[in-house]
Amino acid sequence: MTLASWNGGAARTAILEFVDRVTQEGGSGYVPPSGRVAVIDNDGTLWCEKPAYVQALFVLGRLRDAAARRPELAEQPVVKALLAGDLATAHELGMEAIAGVLLELDAGRTTEEFTRDAKDWLATAEHPRFHVPFPQLTYAPMLELVDLLRARAFRVFIVTGGGVEFVRAVGEELYDVPPDDVVGSAVEVDFARRDGRVVLVRKAAMLGSPNEGPPKVVNIQAHIGRRPILAAGNSAGDREMLEYAHTGELPSLCLVVDHDDAEREYAYASTSVTDPDAEPILDTAGRLGWTVVSMRSDWKQVFAP
Amino acid sequence: MTLASWNGGAARTAILEFVDRVTQEGGSGYVPPSGRVAVIDNDGTLWCEKPAYVQALFVLGRLRDAAARRPELAEQPVVKALLAGDLATAHELGMEAIAGVLLELDAGRTTEEFTRDAKDWLATAEHPRFHVPFPQLTYAPMLELVDLLRARAFRVFIVTGGGVEFVRAVGEELYDVPPDDVVGSAVEVDFARRDGRVVLVRKAAMLGSPNEGPPKVVNIQAHIGRRPILAAGNSAGDREMLEYAHTGELPSLCLVVDHDDAEREYAYASTSVTDPDAEPILDTAGRLGWTVVSMRSDWKQVFAP
Repeated sequence: MTLASWNGGAARTAILEFVDRVTQEGGSGYVPPSGRVAVIDNDGTLWCEKPAYVQALFVLGRLRDAAARRPELAEQPVVKALLAGDLATAHELGMEAIAGVLLELDAGRTTEEFTRDAKDWLATAEHPRFHVPFPQLTYAPMLELVDLLRARAFRVFIVTGGGVEFVRAVGEELYDVPPDDVVGSAVEVDFARRDGRVVLVRKAAMLGSPNEGPPKVVNIQAHIGRRPILAAGNSAGDREMLEYAHTGELPSLCLVVDHDDAEREYAYASTSVTDPDAEPILDTAGRLGWTVVSMRSDWKQVFAP
Repeated sequence: MTLASWNGGAARTAILEFVDRVTQEGGSGYVPPSGRVAVIDNDGTLWCEKPAYVQALFVLGRLRDAAARRPELAEQPVVKALLAGDLATAHELGMEAIAGVLLELDAGRTTEEFTRDAKDWLATAEHPRFHVPFPQLTYAPMLELVDLLRARAFRVFIVTGGGVEFVRAVGEELYDVPPDDVVGSAVEVDFARRDGRVVLVRKAAMLGSPNEGPPKVVNIQAHIGRRPILAAGNSAGDREMLEYAHTGELPSLCLVVDHDDAEREYAYASTSVTDPDAEPILDTAGRLGWTVVSMRSDWKQVFAP
């Protein structure tokens, strides 16, 4: 059944009605396939982002190894917090501080080496509460939404605040999204020739701003080149991306995942890392009439089997 | 017939053998579909770039209008050269100077307005020698190559030194390449809200370097995230992109279009705009064993009907 992991309710109905509306030829809301662009946030929208971003946990493992070899590294505040398992403090220090540590660790490695590292780690590392590898913590209802969209000739892009190379390393396995359909935060790379081969070498610097808030819209244009008609997110960092879809000339659907299920997942208000004082996304959703997806009420099942 | 506009010869044979090799399951050179990435230059590789880049001619029309309104603009050297029809001088002044004028003309316009302008112009403007609209000056043999690659489950990307938004404006009509599969030179944009709508507003500044030479490789990674196995170009500005495909771990095919047909198109040595003293691409091709495509000998027909 379509959207089998969704309970009947306003969210499921809104999705089905929207998809029917934009794909019905001759209908007033018809959008040709070239305009059927969906952008979906990753952390907290497609898979679990608690107790910390999966990428932050990836950093943690690598940091532990590096700090054992280099004591001066272990003295940095964000390193101390991460190594002590104090993820609240690490998050308070901000995505950029976390990213900075990650970047420093991987500077000098090629993009191809980094991808292998990330894939190796993701194949074995386990979630601290659920004790399963992270690829088992994707949301079944959202994967069904992606399948439904593809069946109706949508192109589905992941637009993530996470590192683009990290999310690409799992995008194909988890979501069947190829690397070119992932838009994320990026690092600078240098063109180089090593042993006769052209390679790209990571630098210890972000390329532009983290992909959250207004930069999500800028990067959607840079990579996708079209305004989306469906956008899904879960935090204030997704607001502008949803607004971009919402204020186009075509029909649109904006979905906000509400993490209100402490029993099966986590209950928390999702905030923007780069703009912690932004309006809560549920308030924005209420004001603009976006569709809120309650994890507790709308989803029969949370995680994909 | 496959590659019907190609004469039998080394280039056609190399293409067919390569495509067979990488798609034959169980064969030693087999590449699964996820690795079948092709990157193809636009100007001079997919369509005619003489007597000037199509985008430069687009600028010319807009410049004429703007200069009539603003005399101080008409005093700039590149503007003078372009308005005098002195395209040689304009090219000598460089892609950046030409781009600078374009950028200034369009600063303040939204990306959506720019796309409409480009589409409108391309629908009506005519080539000065062939007296047909530019969309009729794509190369039939290259379109057949794109079709062949797609039939064999390749993803085909355009990687152009031209402005990404300009090439996107024609990519779907000319090559069936959607906007997200075009990688090109980019301008900075500002996130803005106008009349309640989220829009992106062009600034008078390039975003990073022009997409030629090593930046083509950097931008392939940024946008596509995979090393290509087929690369096609026609100038020294494509060298690094071809080298990137050539030095991967998978089988690869590198194609260089040689403009040696003054009668049906133009005869010229293609150089890099950003590095005019670079090794001629035909020398690089000879040295590295790349496949040279002679327009005169290899193509039965040049332009698509």
